[in-house]
Amino acid sequence: MLSVLFLMATTSKPRPPQRFGSVLGLKGEKLDEYKMLHAAVWPTVAGAIRSVNTRNYSGCLRQMPDGNHYLFSYLEDTRSDLAGHRRKLAANPEVKKWWSLTDPRQQPLADRKEGEWWASMQEVFHQE
Amino acid sequence: MLSVLFLMATTSKPRPPQRFGSVLGLKGEKLDEYKMLHAAVWPTVAGAIRSVNTRNYSGCLRQMPDGNHYLFSYLEDTRSDLAGHRRKLAANPEVKKWWSLTDPRQQPLADRKEGEWWASMQEVFHQE
Repeated sequence: MLSVLFLMATTSKPRPPQRFGSVLGLKGEKLDEYKMLHAAVWPTVAGAIRSVNTRNYSGCLRQMPDGNHYLFSYLEDTRSDLAGHRRKLAANPEVKKWWSLTDPRQQPLADRKEGEWWASMQEVFHQE
Repeated sequence: MLSVLFLMATTSKPRPPQRFGSVLGLKGEKLDEYKMLHAAVWPTVAGAIRSVNTRNYSGCLRQMPDGNHYLFSYLEDTRSDLAGHRRKLAANPEVKKWWSLTDPRQQPLADRKEGEWWASMQEVFHQE
């Protein structure tokens, strides 16, 4: 009985969604290819992202004053373990195939934290 | 009758919220002051932002590879006229006072579009 309650507490209890902002460089010469890929994300990849509880996921592009192009992502997640999500996604063959197309077109920030691909940002305000 | 219908169509019809990503530089030496201000946004300013239908509004900070600090904002809005919102907010004395504190700590991007303070970004993907 106790173990059932424990299981319920650890797996079923809904947590309020948390917000995550991240940033990644994109290689300028691969920009059009990157945008084309993301105009039609594979349903298998979209499904895998949903399966790790990621919601309201957007990516916005901007050329910054250093002349380089950066992609900023915003997502909401009911769990805080983004690194764990990435490990789970990495085990999915379709996601692996997708990343083999997207990774070479990306330029992750050199000073990202250990284990990050997308460099996390610090939320300084939020209003519902 | 026609004018009443027109009024309903232009003022009452709910539109699905749209997403807006924007970016702005922050002056490095003013960073701590900026974060302190945003840790306790004035209720009058928060109310004014809500009154122009802005929802789910977040700001994320990151030092970028050029060494400068940038603030990335994500918001949802049921109307697409962000410039109109800014004009409406600018007429609010409390918002004016707030902006007199925040503007000198910000460094808007030189290549932002005419009429912009926050430089708009291009959404390249979204998943609910």
